[in-house]
Amino acid sequence: MLDSFLCELETEESTKYLRYYISSSDETVFCGANGVTAAPPETCFEYLYTNECDVFETPDWAKGAIAYQIFPERFENGDPALSPVGAEPWGSQPTRENFMGGDLRGIIRRLDHLSSLNVDILYLTPIFKSPSNHKYDTADYFSIDPAFGTVDDLKELTKQCHARGIRVLLDGVFNHCGYEFAPFQDVLEKGDQSQYWDWFFVESSPVQTDPHNYDCVGYYKWMPKMRMSNPDVRAFFLSVGTFWIREADIDGWRLDVADEVDFTFWQAFRSAIHTVKPDALLIGESWKDAGDMLRGDQMDSVMNYLFRSSLIGFFANNESAESFDAQLQRLQRLYPQPTQQVLYNLIGSHDTDRFLTLCGGDLRKLKLAAAFQMTYTGMPAIYYGDEIGMTGENDPDCRKAMDWAGADESLLSYYQKMTSLRRSEKALQLGDFHTLHVSDNAYAFARRFENETIVALFNRSAESVELSIPVAECEKGSMYSLLSGDELPLRPIDHNDRFYREDRMRYRSSFSVVLPAYGAEILKFKEETV
Amino acid sequence: MLDSFLCELETEESTKYLRYYISSSDETVFCGANGVTAAPPETCFEYLYTNECDVFETPDWAKGAIAYQIFPERFENGDPALSPVGAEPWGSQPTRENFMGGDLRGIIRRLDHLSSLNVDILYLTPIFKSPSNHKYDTADYFSIDPAFGTVDDLKELTKQCHARGIRVLLDGVFNHCGYEFAPFQDVLEKGDQSQYWDWFFVESSPVQTDPHNYDCVGYYKWMPKMRMSNPDVRAFFLSVGTFWIREADIDGWRLDVADEVDFTFWQAFRSAIHTVKPDALLIGESWKDAGDMLRGDQMDSVMNYLFRSSLIGFFANNESAESFDAQLQRLQRLYPQPTQQVLYNLIGSHDTDRFLTLCGGDLRKLKLAAAFQMTYTGMPAIYYGDEIGMTGENDPDCRKAMDWAGADESLLSYYQKMTSLRRSEKALQLGDFHTLHVSDNAYAFARRFENETIVALFNRSAESVELSIPVAECEKGSMYSLLSGDELPLRPIDHNDRFYREDRMRYRSSFSVVLPAYGAEILKFKEETV
Repeated sequence: MLDSFLCELETEESTKYLRYYISSSDETVFCGANGVTAAPPETCFEYLYTNECDVFETPDWAKGAIAYQIFPERFENGDPALSPVGAEPWGSQPTRENFMGGDLRGIIRRLDHLSSLNVDILYLTPIFKSPSNHKYDTADYFSIDPAFGTVDDLKELTKQCHARGIRVLLDGVFNHCGYEFAPFQDVLEKGDQSQYWDWFFVESSPVQTDPHNYDCVGYYKWMPKMRMSNPDVRAFFLSVGTFWIREADIDGWRLDVADEVDFTFWQAFRSAIHTVKPDALLIGESWKDAGDMLRGDQMDSVMNYLFRSSLIGFFANNESAESFDAQLQRLQRLYPQPTQQVLYNLIGSHDTDRFLTLCGGDLRKLKLAAAFQMTYTGMPAIYYGDEIGMTGENDPDCRKAMDWAGADESLLSYYQKMTSLRRSEKALQLGDFHTLHVSDNAYAFARRFENETIVALFNRSAESVELSIPVAECEKGSMYSLLSGDELPLRPIDHNDRFYREDRMRYRSSFSVVLPAYGAEILKFKEETV
Repeated sequence: MLDSFLCELETEESTKYLRYYISSSDETVFCGANGVTAAPPETCFEYLYTNECDVFETPDWAKGAIAYQIFPERFENGDPALSPVGAEPWGSQPTRENFMGGDLRGIIRRLDHLSSLNVDILYLTPIFKSPSNHKYDTADYFSIDPAFGTVDDLKELTKQCHARGIRVLLDGVFNHCGYEFAPFQDVLEKGDQSQYWDWFFVESSPVQTDPHNYDCVGYYKWMPKMRMSNPDVRAFFLSVGTFWIREADIDGWRLDVADEVDFTFWQAFRSAIHTVKPDALLIGESWKDAGDMLRGDQMDSVMNYLFRSSLIGFFANNESAESFDAQLQRLQRLYPQPTQQVLYNLIGSHDTDRFLTLCGGDLRKLKLAAAFQMTYTGMPAIYYGDEIGMTGENDPDCRKAMDWAGADESLLSYYQKMTSLRRSEKALQLGDFHTLHVSDNAYAFARRFENETIVALFNRSAESVELSIPVAECEKGSMYSLLSGDELPLRPIDHNDRFYREDRMRYRSSFSVVLPAYGAEILKFKEETV
């Protein structure tokens, strides 16, 4: 079992020099800036003056919040009059090209559903004018797609969301535009005589489309790559970023293909956004270690696909709990601390297989993953439809029309219960994270916040397991289940017990718990009142 | 012997996925984004689209260039009329407070000395108006200190330097100001009613100086810390940075206490400087791992005090060659590749003991270190006076008046010869770096550039050593000494020889060389012409 520790040091000194003494019963080694050594190192880790602008702040409102992602073409058809010509019936087999008529009015009509899930943040994939159903090929960054509604509909949506305590994020696709984007059309028409010639990467004039002679996204010629080094392009996208905050009072952006856009643009973007909404949230898309974007000057958060991989491994693919724990420990330390409570912890999106499909349709495994999301650090993110048992492989199948009529009510109730627990328990939203148990099929961790402790336990096997869990908090008291209300007594630890001897400084009592097959338990520590 | 390898891959693909296969005769392991594994990893290192603004470019003119640092108060008195009242005679014992009358005219008069040392870059410690001899407590960022001369003198200096192919860097002290700085004086006078109140970190009005109630540098109340988060302060220092480039055509800045100034300022500073001189050089002061400043958006280079530590260890303190090599290998990979040829590789400065003093006055050891600097990667930096044998412990003794009359001519000739070699050999300026030999007291490395190879060898002991050095280039030919002109024949490697068997893919021949006590040799590979 790997472990990592977090400790906050307060000092009056502006400059801090740190070296570590690492002791076991056998030996002591040291760690300084040049690595691990047998003797105390001369070279310490140095923490010099902390300037105000160096402090990485993420929005408080986003910490531990529950996010919900909607693919607007497929959530609800609120106004059939807007549906594109040739739209297929709701629930048709999705293809890469077809339409089913989802729109902003549909989302507004269904906000009770989001509230029932205790959603704090609504993230919409692109809604600006575009010819496709996904709208990642933007034609006009300053218009709402007419099939989705109007600017007024967006304003109404953000207004109603805000009234419910839900913040709204739009999808900023600034790495590339769509083929119909006016500047690209101008270049198509005028070649290197176009004033927008330098907005793109065209090899030579004239522009050719078959085969294409310009940079685009993944060889997809309908999405020309933007030349972000061009000051005009930068200014254009900075204005898009601030416009929608001012115009429709959105609360931030999810930024598409963020790690293929140059980082100096994101620095400027963060500054510009903060001038119009200082607590806006910026989430970058990334599928890998996104540390480059999380230094404090660019993104607040990223789509945490690494988290998703770990959950797939443990809950869907029966990978070892030890490996799962190692991955989580790494993720806990991969990015700066201010990002940890705002990482967008998803288990699926419009770009992946749905989690339930990866579990072979086993709802018990999906429930475990959902319970894990709702008890873990960061921002748990629900991809529309997961909560009612929708299935689907990667695009286009993961973009089915929301199956309101076919909702699995039991699953939905489970999601509502878990999100409600997260909403009501500060320790689940903001607590720290500490692994408590790792065995073949079981995993448990503690979340601590102020004087509260919650322990979450998971059994991903088909057999029930009994776990004995050590507790650091106290010698007396009990753990009570936030799911069933049952109480489990704490037993003081016998420090002569060989098992606990090494840990005697740390643990003071223990409790036993039986987890049924595919069972999760959420326990809260309750000190005995004398 | 540690080793690291550098390899350049060219590909037409905009997105690159990399995983490593690491093989020995016994086993193969793999390395991907999640670490070293026994099986090929699913998660590769990903290199996505490379945007123009992401490319880290450092000035070509600085690559491999020779720098020379002058502490202007102590280099040459060119105009005694300017000397401060109470200035002591040239060559007096330096104190923290006294003056000896050095000035810009003195530097101009001695430019032949710099040219004789093949200097490419002149770095001056601060020259702006200030009451001290070091002038790190700036009173006026827009004036040359009258004891040093005038703006016209600075213009004349840069003009004459440029005519000699020497670029000029000034010292930018933007982390803090001096007590006499007008805005601080205004705050002293008006307290929180001053329009400059927010330029500093004063605990409460009025300002107190004894004890002081404001942030300053290292408890030194004469240097109040600037509040760089204040937009007015940022704008002020951006204007200082660009002013002197426009006014006096300087070629860049050495930036004092750079790692205590917030990094968002340096991002803005780099942008601002590049608008007035796109190939300006920015060198940050840092005494530790300075990776945070060397991401491409802030500094081009840093004062490489880690390099200095390594040279002190090996040449002055007899630390092992193995440890020396490990440190150099780490330094070769610590910062991004574009910085490697512009790192300011010093062996002493106005803030350290002089190297000769650390060697107990042993000129042979200083010569070895100088030869090492001039053959190693990066920008070798000479601290004024080291080249003529000056000694001195840390400040104030390392700031003695330049002892023109007492110059050690033999040492100076050695420096001239070594700098001349570096100037004439492209491989010494721009070649790569590869360790060739590590033994108790000897160290050797190769520098390769295009089709040239130079090998530098060092014996830091009091006994001569004979080394057998393998060569990858060719089976036939010779190595000839750039110091003596002697030729050393290459012998083809007998691949049945046990010593070379493991390396047979790599080395094709070898040569033997005898290094005298405290001897350095610089050899150039010469292929046999048939």
